[in-house]
Amino acid sequence: MPGASYSLTELVQRFGGEVRGDAQVRVSQIASLSSAQPHHISFLSNPKYRSQVAQSAAGALIVGRDLGDQFECPRIVADNPYAYFARVSGLFNPPPAAEPGVHASAVVHPGATLAPGVSVGANAVIERGVLIGANSVIGAGCVIGPDAHIGADCLLYANVTVYHACEIGERVILHSGCVIGADGFGLAPDQGKWLKIPQIGRVVIENDVEIGANTTIDRGALDDTVIETGVKLDNQIQVAHNVRIGAHTAIAACTGIAGSARIGAHCTIGGAAMIFGHIEIADHVNISTNTLITKSLPKPGTYTSALPFSEHSEWLKNAVQMRHLDSLAKRLRALEKKLEDGEK
Amino acid sequence: MPGASYSLTELVQRFGGEVRGDAQVRVSQIASLSSAQPHHISFLSNPKYRSQVAQSAAGALIVGRDLGDQFECPRIVADNPYAYFARVSGLFNPPPAAEPGVHASAVVHPGATLAPGVSVGANAVIERGVLIGANSVIGAGCVIGPDAHIGADCLLYANVTVYHACEIGERVILHSGCVIGADGFGLAPDQGKWLKIPQIGRVVIENDVEIGANTTIDRGALDDTVIETGVKLDNQIQVAHNVRIGAHTAIAACTGIAGSARIGAHCTIGGAAMIFGHIEIADHVNISTNTLITKSLPKPGTYTSALPFSEHSEWLKNAVQMRHLDSLAKRLRALEKKLEDGEK
Amino acid sequence: MPGASYSLTELVQRFGGEVRGDAQVRVSQIASLSSAQPHHISFLSNPKYRSQVAQSAAGALIVGRDLGDQFECPRIVADNPYAYFARVSGLFNPPPAAEPGVHASAVVHPGATLAPGVSVGANAVIERGVLIGANSVIGAGCVIGPDAHIGADCLLYANVTVYHACEIGERVILHSGCVIGADGFGLAPDQGKWLKIPQIGRVVIENDVEIGANTTIDRGALDDTVIETGVKLDNQIQVAHNVRIGAHTAIAACTGIAGSARIGAHCTIGGAAMIFGHIEIADHVNISTNTLITKSLPKPGTYTSALPFSEHSEWLKNAVQMRHLDSLAKRLRALEKKLEDGEK
Repeated sequence: MPGASYSLTELVQRFGGEVRGDAQVRVSQIASLSSAQPHHISFLSNPKYRSQVAQSAAGALIVGRDLGDQFECPRIVADNPYAYFARVSGLFNPPPAAEPGVHASAVVHPGATLAPGVSVGANAVIERGVLIGANSVIGAGCVIGPDAHIGADCLLYANVTVYHACEIGERVILHSGCVIGADGFGLAPDQGKWLKIPQIGRVVIENDVEIGANTTIDRGALDDTVIETGVKLDNQIQVAHNVRIGAHTAIAACTGIAGSARIGAHCTIGGAAMIFGHIEIADHVNISTNTLITKSLPKPGTYTSALPFSEHSEWLKNAVQMRHLDSLAKRLRALEKKLEDGEK
Repeated sequence: MPGASYSLTELVQRFGGEVRGDAQVRVSQIASLSSAQPHHISFLSNPKYRSQVAQSAAGALIVGRDLGDQFECPRIVADNPYAYFARVSGLFNPPPAAEPGVHASAVVHPGATLAPGVSVGANAVIERGVLIGANSVIGAGCVIGPDAHIGADCLLYANVTVYHACEIGERVILHSGCVIGADGFGLAPDQGKWLKIPQIGRVVIENDVEIGANTTIDRGALDDTVIETGVKLDNQIQVAHNVRIGAHTAIAACTGIAGSARIGAHCTIGGAAMIFGHIEIADHVNISTNTLITKSLPKPGTYTSALPFSEHSEWLKNAVQMRHLDSLAKRLRALEKKLEDGEK
Repeated sequence: MPGASYSLTELVQRFGGEVRGDAQVRVSQIASLSSAQPHHISFLSNPKYRSQVAQSAAGALIVGRDLGDQFECPRIVADNPYAYFARVSGLFNPPPAAEPGVHASAVVHPGATLAPGVSVGANAVIERGVLIGANSVIGAGCVIGPDAHIGADCLLYANVTVYHACEIGERVILHSGCVIGADGFGLAPDQGKWLKIPQIGRVVIENDVEIGANTTIDRGALDDTVIETGVKLDNQIQVAHNVRIGAHTAIAACTGIAGSARIGAHCTIGGAAMIFGHIEIADHVNISTNTLITKSLPKPGTYTSALPFSEHSEWLKNAVQMRHLDSLAKRLRALEKKLEDGEK
């Protein structure tokens, strides 16, 4: 189903940049260089793929200023071609429309309040005291617990769970299977058993946050767990109780953040990173994939602890020495001392 | 909505300990030192936060015996102030009440049996042959598969899935998105393809277990997967088929336990640990965050394999040497030998 | 509930192999050596468990050719006893039968098409444009998004989510909580914020794939994410956008695969492995548990990067040296040079 088409002139009127070549070419979808057809606009953000342009059937191209003069085809030259591509794609691919209204099979408690334009999908459940802001979409099978508040223009895909009393801002996207506000892992040891500590804080998610599929964000023990404005979380991330994640931080899949950690703003955290609890990470920190952060990081920078892989037989020989590093260091020191003594 | 209030005298009558200062002070909620108001009781389990007490507006305090005489404010002195805090918080914050009865939108098979006081939430599904014990709460959207048994006083939050024939004890808490009893990963290689091995064991969960959001516990291949009494599992833990986890063991988020591993009782396992299959771990073992356990641990103790992080540029220089440790060790040995020979 | 019983003669007529001992013994279920009763058939694929056979009450045994003459009991001798066991177990334990038809509480859009024999469970939701092939089972609480296609003879357990337009082949098994087709993590940095890149590709899952509980497979950014024929994915695996996993590859739980990685056919990947994006892994590669693969692997083989664990006190001493490996290597080189110079 082809959508509306736009000429390059119309695109630069909306999003800036400038056209080179035929400005009347019309495009209606984004595609990669290799699969693009004449009604597609493609993009080149990395010069190393430059050679693919000649083979591409794309009707037009988005390129950076550095590459603006290297091609003949109709093209838009932009300062940030990848961001430009994102905006054009957003124009061509708006989020799935949902009919406003409550599906007949959904269960909305009479004590819940839905603003105009809200859509509640089939078999969704909205408990008492819930507020849902204008035009938000609650997908099929979602369960929104008592007294949870969801702002305007949110999009909850199917089978999302929001526990009681959580607060979600505007334009928040929650993907399927994510669980917002389950109890934090609060236990007091008592004579060989564990006493449960009631988790009475909430989860507070600010505006423009996106949370991936099957990600879990636990409610606070006493105070709240907070996800600040513009944070983007990938799938299967675990955020423990009382964590705070600073604005516009992006975290890749499978990462875990232990209780009461405070992550700064504008950080990037690679996949499968693990962050200790009760530590503080500065703004503009980058943490590499598979990295374990065991203490506070007061300064911006990139931090890593990934072990390099090798062929298994090589690995076996090296790994055994990892258990002897202290001894290796001592033997080295002893040799150094012996030679120093010999020289004296 | 403020709950019932209790004087300090009433609290020690219930939970032991002794009051110092004004015993008639009434409190109705727990709070952290920094956010407490006069109707709150706070606690101090770690002496390093002692200086925060003077600034706190808390109406009363729970402290350990060592700190009992260091403050003037109304306070309860307890042997284990953190456990005391857990009990008081449990009094102030009972689990969410659920109205007994089956919601009109829930689907309960006529061949299922619900004891008195059971609550079944909206759009939950209870299949044939299911037994649910007295006063258990089945949250909205839960699906309880055929012939599964759930004991009394359990609390299943929304969107929990329990597969057929699983057995769940009393006072068990299951958080949203957890999946109990999916097939274990049993495959037989056969001429370049994989044959599925039917997983005909069950999951058996004993009493007083709590299982976190999106945690998965697979059913046994032939015999059962067993989670013993009082085990506490955090979010996004994977427990493979035929694992047995001993009583009162606590496991932090994102940990994975491979098939047929046997974990002892009273163990603690840090987040994102990985435990090999077919190994046996003794009681009272502690496993650190991010640690990979590759063989049996017959003795109590703390075990670790986490790689320390560093700034990326530092890490690059050190990581390259991790691939040469065997060679480093051999060169060191050669030097030692050369010096020994020289001395002779 | 005992199922149908089969004599050993009947089993070899179906599955090949040859009987030794009493061929008329009838068995009706599979069991492990230790729990087997006389109506059970057990198996021995690993000679090290040979001594358990004498104690077992099993009515019959499946053994390999190497062990065929070592026992007296009724037995089937097979080339691949583990695969034989899988086939016999499949005969005794067919997948749970589901009554064809749409449960009264399910919501099926009038614009969806269900082939004959399809079963749709309670409170499941099938959106417009969906096609479901003959005899497929859609479990309770599943949500199948608009225009998704599901082939014949599939089995979706409860609470599975399939996003719009995804394509699923025949005989595919999806376990509870898995999410197929959520948006990939596509973000363009723009002046300190993140712009969402619409994810307009699909997930395409070919025939005979099995996907574990709470596993997530993201839809492609522009082109599709593809899971080829016969792939087996365990629980809590994360597959990012535009990944391709080659035919008959098996991946254990908790593994993450970053965007646009291409995994070959017939690979095995251990639990909690992490695979970088935009890399290519050859056919027949084995990746060990907890291993991080940071670059393409053009050759078959086994690759590993797991750090060996030790007692915590030992680990502390060795771990500190991991931060000094570069310096250790330089000091070693200096010593070698000093000795070489001395010899000259």
